[in-house]
Amino acid sequence: MSPVAAHWKLTLGLTGLAGVLGLELLVRYLRRRRPLREVLFFPVPMTCLEPLLSPGQKCSCRLSHTDSALTRLLFRLLGAQRSLDLCLFTFSCPVLARAVLSLHQRGVRVRVVTDSDYMAASGSQMGDLRSAGIPVRHSQSSGYMHHKFAVIDKAILITGSLNWTIQATQTNRENILITDESVFVKAFLKEFEKLWNEYDPATYDFFPEKESK
Amino acid sequence: MSPVAAHWKLTLGLTGLAGVLGLELLVRYLRRRRPLREVLFFPVPMTCLEPLLSPGQKCSCRLSHTDSALTRLLFRLLGAQRSLDLCLFTFSCPVLARAVLSLHQRGVRVRVVTDSDYMAASGSQMGDLRSAGIPVRHSQSSGYMHHKFAVIDKAILITGSLNWTIQATQTNRENILITDESVFVKAFLKEFEKLWNEYDPATYDFFPEKESK
Repeated sequence: MSPVAAHWKLTLGLTGLAGVLGLELLVRYLRRRRPLREVLFFPVPMTCLEPLLSPGQKCSCRLSHTDSALTRLLFRLLGAQRSLDLCLFTFSCPVLARAVLSLHQRGVRVRVVTDSDYMAASGSQMGDLRSAGIPVRHSQSSGYMHHKFAVIDKAILITGSLNWTIQATQTNRENILITDESVFVKAFLKEFEKLWNEYDPATYDFFPEKESK
Repeated sequence: MSPVAAHWKLTLGLTGLAGVLGLELLVRYLRRRRPLREVLFFPVPMTCLEPLLSPGQKCSCRLSHTDSALTRLLFRLLGAQRSLDLCLFTFSCPVLARAVLSLHQRGVRVRVVTDSDYMAASGSQMGDLRSAGIPVRHSQSSGYMHHKFAVIDKAILITGSLNWTIQATQTNRENILITDESVFVKAFLKEFEKLWNEYDPATYDFFPEKESK
């Protein structure tokens, strides 16, 4: 082979290699998972949620069947495959409780941390969750367990100002932020595990103020 | 020039160009602004905040001078250069109010949206903010204005479960998330502007239930 031909071969070879690498990068870029960044604002009007809660069944009720912040929240929750860690100050919204119960029934590992005062409030769903076999642990110290967050499959964080009540979803100005940003997810998961262990009923001290004599 | 020399020149030229471009990309990558992703959990013990609120002055009080979630929050707030938009259900924490007042005094444009019921609660800082000349607008409808967020310089979002009260910072289990993620910042800014306009006192209707006859 002549020197000229050899150099053309080298040049074409390098160009081809660069092209293949560039194409690979482009494919990876196009195939990359889009980060989850969703913001939901409340209040929302009451809409029919049956199509989400009972998939496959048609509903002809008179309520609106449009999309809303609550249907988006339900959609995310119902997407849980393996686990749902709930850390909620107060939980009295029946529709959201129904979603959590359905996850439990289809084998998703649900754990709940809540506030000791508000778990006994009127309309609280904690009794129903416990009756169904979902473990619920509550705060054991003064001060409210005021978090309002959920972590789905240890990968998606739902957090904000929204307590899971009918008033909050239908009347208040509230926000929810949904993200799979790992910095946020990891921090909230760590907080959940910390509280889950701290509120273990096996270590419950009914008289924390009393010192042992 | 011989064909071989010409091809070497071409090959070296292309390699040099690729090197320069690669170097430029590397420099940009290294210089890129790191995204802001911070999570703060409460409660925190009471610590001395004077070094932050009165920079340059030494403090020898007996309180701890360590870093905490509250010092981190204060640090972020005090970093505001142009604007601070606050949307708070309840605001009674004196230290945070001092920080907001100091921003106002050094020319940062502060605006506050709050809840009509809780702005009159014991310890509320809304009166002091208004007295200092900060515009405060409140909800005008049923349901709580339950948001707890702040946007700094229209670029940094602070949001979470934390009401800006002493109980929340020192006693409750609470969270705050700080981010410059544009999807989140834009959504919360839009919500702020919406409420700011909706709660304009010039359009306040004292009898919203009454229909005009």
